Amino acid sequence: MTIEPKIFCLVPDMPNPSDVNPLLQEMYNNRWYTNFGPLNARFEAEMVEFLAESGSPGLSVGTFSSATTGLELILRAMRLPEGGKVLVPALTFPATALAVINAGLVPVLGDVDPYSWELTPEIAMYAHEKQDYVAVIPVAAFGKPVPTAGWQTFQRDTGIPVVLDTAAVLGQQQVPTDLTAVFSLHATKPFGVGEGGLVATSDVALLERAQSLSNFGFLGTAGVVQQIGTNAKFGEYYAAVGLTQIQRWPEVIERRRKVADVYLDKLSQFGNSIRLQAGVEGFVPAVLPIFAKGKGAEIFAAMTDNGIQTRHWYLPLLHKHPALDGVDVVNADGLMACDELGAGLVGLPFHSFLTCDDIDKICAVLAEVV
Amino acid sequence: MTIEPKIFCLVPDMPNPSDVNPLLQEMYNNRWYTNFGPLNARFEAEMVEFLAESGSPGLSVGTFSSATTGLELILRAMRLPEGGKVLVPALTFPATALAVINAGLVPVLGDVDPYSWELTPEIAMYAHEKQDYVAVIPVAAFGKPVPTAGWQTFQRDTGIPVVLDTAAVLGQQQVPTDLTAVFSLHATKPFGVGEGGLVATSDVALLERAQSLSNFGFLGTAGVVQQIGTNAKFGEYYAAVGLTQIQRWPEVIERRRKVADVYLDKLSQFGNSIRLQAGVEGFVPAVLPIFAKGKGAEIFAAMTDNGIQTRHWYLPLLHKHPALDGVDVVNADGLMACDELGAGLVGLPFHSFLTCDDIDKICAVLAEVV
Repeated sequence: MTIEPKIFCLVPDMPNPSDVNPLLQEMYNNRWYTNFGPLNARFEAEMVEFLAESGSPGLSVGTFSSATTGLELILRAMRLPEGGKVLVPALTFPATALAVINAGLVPVLGDVDPYSWELTPEIAMYAHEKQDYVAVIPVAAFGKPVPTAGWQTFQRDTGIPVVLDTAAVLGQQQVPTDLTAVFSLHATKPFGVGEGGLVATSDVALLERAQSLSNFGFLGTAGVVQQIGTNAKFGEYYAAVGLTQIQRWPEVIERRRKVADVYLDKLSQFGNSIRLQAGVEGFVPAVLPIFAKGKGAEIFAAMTDNGIQTRHWYLPLLHKHPALDGVDVVNADGLMACDELGAGLVGLPFHSFLTCDDIDKICAVLAEVV
Repeated sequence: MTIEPKIFCLVPDMPNPSDVNPLLQEMYNNRWYTNFGPLNARFEAEMVEFLAESGSPGLSVGTFSSATTGLELILRAMRLPEGGKVLVPALTFPATALAVINAGLVPVLGDVDPYSWELTPEIAMYAHEKQDYVAVIPVAAFGKPVPTAGWQTFQRDTGIPVVLDTAAVLGQQQVPTDLTAVFSLHATKPFGVGEGGLVATSDVALLERAQSLSNFGFLGTAGVVQQIGTNAKFGEYYAAVGLTQIQRWPEVIERRRKVADVYLDKLSQFGNSIRLQAGVEGFVPAVLPIFAKGKGAEIFAAMTDNGIQTRHWYLPLLHKHPALDGVDVVNADGLMACDELGAGLVGLPFHSFLTCDDIDKICAVLAEVV
């Protein structure tokens, strides 16, 4: 018998439709529903401001149907050599590697730092010394902002372009003007609109090519297809929700911050028997994975038995998915940190609406196992 | 100086957001915004009924982010030999060929019938006798329903699968259970939701694989990626609009039918100096192209000068787009009908909100040229 969860792992914090309605009426009056309409233009403009105010001035932004398509199309727009190798961490959502493959490139999986759970410039430099890469995609794992200084140095020293997969961390990620970042606007992200992606870059020609690819490859005013594109456009409805979310963002992040503060405090009782992502006190996570060496499955089962929904975020590791079976890894003998993390990571419930009581229940079940 | 059009070529006939709002409140209460949620399930179920009632029983339907991605992913799900040739008409929206290319296949362009402006089974049979194809994609040109009996025979006799690109003709296209059809839900289509696509087929395993490809390739309950997919999902908002459009459809098609009736009557004054798509009296078109031999550009210019917006729908021909420059055509010496049509087709304004006065003005300008 399946137990219906009482505490959900993830609950979107989205605007009430009545708060979006004035913008939907505007859309209706415009009779313009997609194809880079006026609400999309306003959302992109406000997002430039939003990024500037959160420490990333000087960027342009473009919308896409998802972060996956945004990443795929920005990679295509970079016109990298077909079949070129792209370094991605083995611990990430599969879309990171799928976008690489769909862009005609070949992902190679690198290990992550055992504490930050992220691909680092040091790991990338080690991989780069063994073979050539045409790009590197560091991932903001579980919503931890990527420290960018090391990646700027890596890109400058190696000449290998760095594209940040910052899907889950819009609002907390700083993007310097020499890097390109891809954010998700999926409903399960802290800044959600439903489905959508956002590319931030200072390279306006690159962004224009990527947005052209999202609109069949039409470019310029002649109405002809200049590149082999697809349809990956962001509609006016999602732009309306995005504009509303910009207004709501201070309260959304504050709700999440309060839950995180209580949670981290309660989890501190477990001392060294569990490990949290390094630096987690310094940001508000998108999801809340904990690591308990070798006990991932046991915690998952205990939570399920108690009506608490958990998730194996980013698991299995990329090369353990059947469709990615033949993908190369940097160290053919294994990925030390990833392999160990894979057996011990569990995503605990984390969202705006968790109560102290919920967190107590989660911690009580956790205490039985660790 | 650019003249701002006074009569627009195409105006979407979409529901007032207040009529969608009850479903959006349901979405909000469900806290489920995409990923095959309950509104999507209801929309798919109602679409099965909708198709059955309009003469196409026995089909399953699945939603996609667009008709382009739906066509691409259904082609991928068919697991055709990589690099296999796919016959498509040269007179179509570029997405038909782009989806083929993005699915790892090679489009070859066929001519169209000079009167119906569509690829026919006869043209396909002629092409088939010259070389092998792994699939054929007939197009419901300008929203003219594809006559399917000939295609059923073609598919049965040749063993070549036929996939109908019926993007613009949802609600008027009959789909027999041995064929697969792809419909668009783009706002510019008569049945619009904003962005979206719908695949109708009786092959549920094929549809399941295609929908899995739209969700990163996740298939089954194990949470692992079984195929190299992407994100091409249809969100709950669009499902809500779709459910509303099903209710509105009788009035939408009736409004369009009335405009078409007046229009065709007034255009009959031009006798043989213009030609309409063969059979246009039997359906309500999505857009209204006329053919005036060699006079396409002249009509376009005269309309523009008079504040009437026209469009070169489906033009230039596919192989005249820079990105499709190297694409093969069935007859290397040219496509007789397409080449002549290309110089004479103009899309006149056609939508639910055209008045008799608008139509009179359009015809008056047309009379000056032809």
